Amino acid sequence: MKELFPMIPKIDYEGPDSDKELAFKRYDPEAAVDGKTERECLRFSMAFWHTMTGEGKDPFGDPSAVRPWDGVDDPMEAARMRMRGLFELTEKLSIPYFCFHDRDIAPQGETLRETNRKLDEIVALAKELMKTSPTRLLWGTANMFSDPRFMHGAATSPDPNVFAYAAAQVKKAIEVTKELGGQNYVFWGGREGYETLLNTDTKREQDNLARFFRMAVDYAKEIGFAGQFLLEPKPKEPTKHQYDFDAAACYGFLSEYELLPYFKLNIETNHATLAGHTMQHELRFARERGILGSVDANQGDELLGWDTDQFPTNLYVSTLMMYEILKNGGLHSGGLNFDAKVRRGSFRPEDIAAAHIAGMDSMARGYRAASRMIADGALDAPLAERYAGWRSGIGASIEAGEQDFESLEAIALDMERIALSSGRQEFLESVVNRYI
Amino acid sequence: MKELFPMIPKIDYEGPDSDKELAFKRYDPEAAVDGKTERECLRFSMAFWHTMTGEGKDPFGDPSAVRPWDGVDDPMEAARMRMRGLFELTEKLSIPYFCFHDRDIAPQGETLRETNRKLDEIVALAKELMKTSPTRLLWGTANMFSDPRFMHGAATSPDPNVFAYAAAQVKKAIEVTKELGGQNYVFWGGREGYETLLNTDTKREQDNLARFFRMAVDYAKEIGFAGQFLLEPKPKEPTKHQYDFDAAACYGFLSEYELLPYFKLNIETNHATLAGHTMQHELRFARERGILGSVDANQGDELLGWDTDQFPTNLYVSTLMMYEILKNGGLHSGGLNFDAKVRRGSFRPEDIAAAHIAGMDSMARGYRAASRMIADGALDAPLAERYAGWRSGIGASIEAGEQDFESLEAIALDMERIALSSGRQEFLESVVNRYI
Amino acid sequence: MKELFPMIPKIDYEGPDSDKELAFKRYDPEAAVDGKTERECLRFSMAFWHTMTGEGKDPFGDPSAVRPWDGVDDPMEAARMRMRGLFELTEKLSIPYFCFHDRDIAPQGETLRETNRKLDEIVALAKELMKTSPTRLLWGTANMFSDPRFMHGAATSPDPNVFAYAAAQVKKAIEVTKELGGQNYVFWGGREGYETLLNTDTKREQDNLARFFRMAVDYAKEIGFAGQFLLEPKPKEPTKHQYDFDAAACYGFLSEYELLPYFKLNIETNHATLAGHTMQHELRFARERGILGSVDANQGDELLGWDTDQFPTNLYVSTLMMYEILKNGGLHSGGLNFDAKVRRGSFRPEDIAAAHIAGMDSMARGYRAASRMIADGALDAPLAERYAGWRSGIGASIEAGEQDFESLEAIALDMERIALSSGRQEFLESVVNRYI
Amino acid sequence: MKELFPMIPKIDYEGPDSDKELAFKRYDPEAAVDGKTERECLRFSMAFWHTMTGEGKDPFGDPSAVRPWDGVDDPMEAARMRMRGLFELTEKLSIPYFCFHDRDIAPQGETLRETNRKLDEIVALAKELMKTSPTRLLWGTANMFSDPRFMHGAATSPDPNVFAYAAAQVKKAIEVTKELGGQNYVFWGGREGYETLLNTDTKREQDNLARFFRMAVDYAKEIGFAGQFLLEPKPKEPTKHQYDFDAAACYGFLSEYELLPYFKLNIETNHATLAGHTMQHELRFARERGILGSVDANQGDELLGWDTDQFPTNLYVSTLMMYEILKNGGLHSGGLNFDAKVRRGSFRPEDIAAAHIAGMDSMARGYRAASRMIADGALDAPLAERYAGWRSGIGASIEAGEQDFESLEAIALDMERIALSSGRQEFLESVVNRYI
Repeated sequence: MKELFPMIPKIDYEGPDSDKELAFKRYDPEAAVDGKTERECLRFSMAFWHTMTGEGKDPFGDPSAVRPWDGVDDPMEAARMRMRGLFELTEKLSIPYFCFHDRDIAPQGETLRETNRKLDEIVALAKELMKTSPTRLLWGTANMFSDPRFMHGAATSPDPNVFAYAAAQVKKAIEVTKELGGQNYVFWGGREGYETLLNTDTKREQDNLARFFRMAVDYAKEIGFAGQFLLEPKPKEPTKHQYDFDAAACYGFLSEYELLPYFKLNIETNHATLAGHTMQHELRFARERGILGSVDANQGDELLGWDTDQFPTNLYVSTLMMYEILKNGGLHSGGLNFDAKVRRGSFRPEDIAAAHIAGMDSMARGYRAASRMIADGALDAPLAERYAGWRSGIGASIEAGEQDFESLEAIALDMERIALSSGRQEFLESVVNRYI
Repeated sequence: MKELFPMIPKIDYEGPDSDKELAFKRYDPEAAVDGKTERECLRFSMAFWHTMTGEGKDPFGDPSAVRPWDGVDDPMEAARMRMRGLFELTEKLSIPYFCFHDRDIAPQGETLRETNRKLDEIVALAKELMKTSPTRLLWGTANMFSDPRFMHGAATSPDPNVFAYAAAQVKKAIEVTKELGGQNYVFWGGREGYETLLNTDTKREQDNLARFFRMAVDYAKEIGFAGQFLLEPKPKEPTKHQYDFDAAACYGFLSEYELLPYFKLNIETNHATLAGHTMQHELRFARERGILGSVDANQGDELLGWDTDQFPTNLYVSTLMMYEILKNGGLHSGGLNFDAKVRRGSFRPEDIAAAHIAGMDSMARGYRAASRMIADGALDAPLAERYAGWRSGIGASIEAGEQDFESLEAIALDMERIALSSGRQEFLESVVNRYI
Repeated sequence: MKELFPMIPKIDYEGPDSDKELAFKRYDPEAAVDGKTERECLRFSMAFWHTMTGEGKDPFGDPSAVRPWDGVDDPMEAARMRMRGLFELTEKLSIPYFCFHDRDIAPQGETLRETNRKLDEIVALAKELMKTSPTRLLWGTANMFSDPRFMHGAATSPDPNVFAYAAAQVKKAIEVTKELGGQNYVFWGGREGYETLLNTDTKREQDNLARFFRMAVDYAKEIGFAGQFLLEPKPKEPTKHQYDFDAAACYGFLSEYELLPYFKLNIETNHATLAGHTMQHELRFARERGILGSVDANQGDELLGWDTDQFPTNLYVSTLMMYEILKNGGLHSGGLNFDAKVRRGSFRPEDIAAAHIAGMDSMARGYRAASRMIADGALDAPLAERYAGWRSGIGASIEAGEQDFESLEAIALDMERIALSSGRQEFLESVVNRYI
Repeated sequence: MKELFPMIPKIDYEGPDSDKELAFKRYDPEAAVDGKTERECLRFSMAFWHTMTGEGKDPFGDPSAVRPWDGVDDPMEAARMRMRGLFELTEKLSIPYFCFHDRDIAPQGETLRETNRKLDEIVALAKELMKTSPTRLLWGTANMFSDPRFMHGAATSPDPNVFAYAAAQVKKAIEVTKELGGQNYVFWGGREGYETLLNTDTKREQDNLARFFRMAVDYAKEIGFAGQFLLEPKPKEPTKHQYDFDAAACYGFLSEYELLPYFKLNIETNHATLAGHTMQHELRFARERGILGSVDANQGDELLGWDTDQFPTNLYVSTLMMYEILKNGGLHSGGLNFDAKVRRGSFRPEDIAAAHIAGMDSMARGYRAASRMIADGALDAPLAERYAGWRSGIGASIEAGEQDFESLEAIALDMERIALSSGRQEFLESVVNRYI
């Protein structure tokens, strides 16, 4: 098969002192770490939409990206080239997985029936390519936000025909995810929310959303799709408010509608920051409730107010993200999907490789830092000391359920000044610096 | 009894054209509206802390407020003056309720036992004053954030002694709330959260918080306190993250720990905006889940990032707040508590009156606007039309649970382009303007 | 000529009680106000880009708008239809002006020479239409942000060829603005800034920007274009940082490069809020320095972090905006340009009319409120009182330049506590409510 | 003299692998770097207010800090202890400088005359301590924001008596700064701005501010104070808007009032981020205009909206800050002042040392990273390549002033598609990671 990206070689590991643009400095796919290879531990994934379908547009700018399929008029031929390009790049970059939306990989037709036919053709190509490639599918999803039929929502549209269309679309998307051996299926409800409360029946819309999810659960069971369902929180953009605002809102929603057994979360760094949370916060919240499923690894710019989907290079984010993931026993069927796009000014194909390398090196370095922090008990030991009071005496008694307000009042009424311990935030921040 | 605020007269209603500083232009306490008086409908409350205890400090500035108890050295004498001042001002301003924290109304002693004695003395004074005053207690609460013992949390402190102290403090606060006929009891966990995840066992802290709430529920039952328990969401400040981030997070927490039957929410405008939500959003979310309990009426400055607790003068906020409250059938045992402080530069006693008047006029005007909007169906009619598809045909069938992904696919596969309706946001915004 | 928008009638004034969607409730174009008609006072303008070229896209969504030129394959024919549509809608809506970017009104060709030819053809059409229409050109500008050649900036591009291209493009845009009788010419440097400081020579870029502006000034003089040059501040989006961050940054830049005599500012509400300022702040800053030129009237959502360009319906913004404009003696050659787009869900042509009506009614109501506030001295009187100390005694002496640190120390050393006046913010906010 | 902080030893350098809380891991005061010692290069300074006067309060919390002067009733004795403590800690921490506000170091009296007497006494003590200590004064300033007399501003107060008082206070503060050999004098106008435009004569206030600065310039000249005057930008908090919003606003102000020759800027990280800028942006802006004077080294939390004044531990900030400082040829008479406070929960004296160590290690590591990046041309080489077009041909001709719109149009009219270079943001971010 003709190489589509001849300017991008197979990327080798050269070590931390290399200044070569197209080389790994930290990610060494075959290196052993914690009894596996780094490739196995990190479970990187390429996002089809940003890297294969993305054109370098922004709200004020036309496409800028230079890609092998520029000027190819036939949408299906371009779609085939993109799929081949995906396999070529994931292999060259030692990325074991990819993720896609249905509409990323194949164009729409006049009807959903025709659209599905086009999709089937590309799915068949992907399946064929998998035969000779190590690249696998991390998750699939349905794009129910780009087409204007979804302008008022998909499962939460005021129009039941849109609900029906969305149902049919997700049915098919689950089928093709299964067909390609996808390990998870993601729901990101970009239009499931509101633009203004003045025109929105929020209760009905959320009831319908839950109804939709139950149908999806039923259908997956029916066809024997065993992948994990993942909900992806985001607070806003494109809509003013999205129902799946953050991990806590998703948890509440899943709980309210009795969907907790069927869903975990796919957590994205830039979505976390748009909600006013750190990525670590969102991962921690999900981890402690057993719903940390997968990660969309990118980063935002906290001084900007929109979803910039930058490649994740910040070592604080990667280290603390990995810390939570390691505490979770890994991501299980999930992975680290680069839901990140090259900057509009990084328009060359080479920039795709450079950007993924920057992200992968950052993640690998974060992984090693977090792993050593845990091995050394660098944070765990001060934490254990800080909460030591709960392991005996009145603390243990409270946690054992032996106390009430009256018994505690008896202790407190004549209590002397309580000798507290310092929170030591500054020291702990310097500990993290030591490991980076 | 000697008048403490002779510069503030009894405030009269003079109508919308009055330009007098100390007169109501919109709030007419005895005017009939929806079968009650405005006083009964609006259930205004004065916040003891801002208005009686507040000193006009900010993080960069010393006290500026001029108050009748300035220079009174004995803290108990100042406390008595403040309580008398509260009754004087609520009566002059036709405000039927007040709210307080335990530490607002009486100073601390060396031990909790001594503190409780001081509190009892002031509570007795308040009870005495109620005999001849129409002013009643909307809710009480415990201040578990000012004293340094709570620097790492109260119910979520790493130190179980602090948990015990907090338990004893809340026990007493519930007792005095009951003693004063309080209709609700509020929990605002200003320190229940974290400064940094590096030193925080978030799981244990939230388990303990839930444990604490259960003890409170048990104790209220034991002593026969029939008031409503209210949880108050706030995302941050003073801590980096507060567990009760927003209404959705509170809902999820109450659900996770099976506390939903015992709690409603006390929702504050400025807390909503700090969480990235409109006040209407928070009220709507709570209303639809049956947990809209009470309102802390203030406003923030959306261009500033901290809790400014300004008096609520924005007519959009008041109108849409009242819209949700009316849809809720009113606030029941809750009220509109002015959790608002005069600006530091509004240091005169007269400014207290002017600020409350500004807020009350704004609320009254919002009430009338919302009431007319509802009576006219100004928003309801377009809403009903927008969701009409769900009342028959496939919409009704979906909501009746008769459809699944396969039956819906059959409808959608060859569907023509769906004819959507406009969201009409701009028109609906102009409708609201018409009623303001 | 065939009507393009038959569903939009000529919009009549029906008064504040009308609930008709397509009628003015507040804007009465021919009503007399301050010795002119409202049409003359308000100088409304329609933005060609949003209303004629806008397609209802967003970063996550495809075009949704339904427009008369949908399906017209020839770009020049579509351009002609759009220009006719502009004149039809401005007349129906009693909007006396319009504004455009060069690329809004005509498509690009293979070379700039060809592009200019296409532009000339459409400009000729506009000129022809003006013969029988009252619609006039408020300002023209050049789009130097959409085409990928400007991805790294236009006048601030690292590539001098882009500078040259931009120069040629602005030369032509000034020429056609002059040809159409434009009263102003606007520079909005959407890409004049940086994405990252790591790759940017900020000093050289700003030197080049100033050089570019001087060339523009020279060229305007050369061809006798007497319109006002306007610089439009915006802090960010599409770039991370734009050099023309806010009014203060523009002022500093113009001062540094000695361009102050040639430029005023075109101030946009949503750009102000993205910079952390109120619109009134930006207008005030410009007004006090004699550089308030024109206004892009829209509004943002302060809880969202991007440029939403909503139609301006907030009465606080319109009232305080008009207050500053009236204090400026009006906008002179400037106007109130609706740099606002219908929401993506408001996709019908009728929504264009409803949205402009909402904006115009809000502005007209704000104008009347501000005019009455000024006539009554509602804010001026308290202001004069607040600063009264500067009109005599030590205040007047300081302002007369008669004092220095030593003479003032002599006064202050033994000064008693200074008796300050209240800032009365809450009362003044209630005054504004009285006039809304 | 009795040691005040016996729990804090002299801090030694132990190298990057040390896990000791009270040891330097990166800052090695006597190590040679770029021909000086690290101590000389980094010019660290301790902030008297946070570290000596700070009590661990926040807007919702009472003092928490444990300090040697707790319980000392005589304010002058406490002031003496604090000054001794300052010298003890700076020596133990190898911090060569300190900074103070007048009111940090000595309490107020009944009159300014009495206040000055108290100040003189403490200044005499500081001077005495300097005889045997290497600690020197980086800068002094006047606190004109805490006392309620400044509630409406100091030099911008509506009351001229406040202007006079402020003048007298700054006169004295400059005198004591000179007396103590201070190398700079800082103006931070915390109250010089507005709370609401409704009550503010912004023009008069800024005129008065400039008048005040000119008096200060004159007085410094008169008494022969040769230190550098520094203006400190901050956008907001405590006031809604501060006139010295950011570096660009300060530049514009200084330019407008012809004060540029007399002032440089003191730039603070957390103030930069509150204004929506990175620290590097503010430093760059000032550097390129020759007004980078000094640095208040701290960090904010970009997910919080207020001035958290945290100790600076983020290595990205320290590296890029040092990059700009090195490009500036160092800070000259300025320094790196830790305008940072220990978290309220870090209440022990030991936390003061741990926090400064965390900050100093971060700065030292950033210094070395930036120095190596510059030595290697790691960013400079790609930058030179990116702008190469300006060094010859049309680029050089434009910069030489040889071109105008007409000559450039001749080049552009038939120009082929311009071949741009990639911005390479992702790669450059990975380069920074390599040096951290």
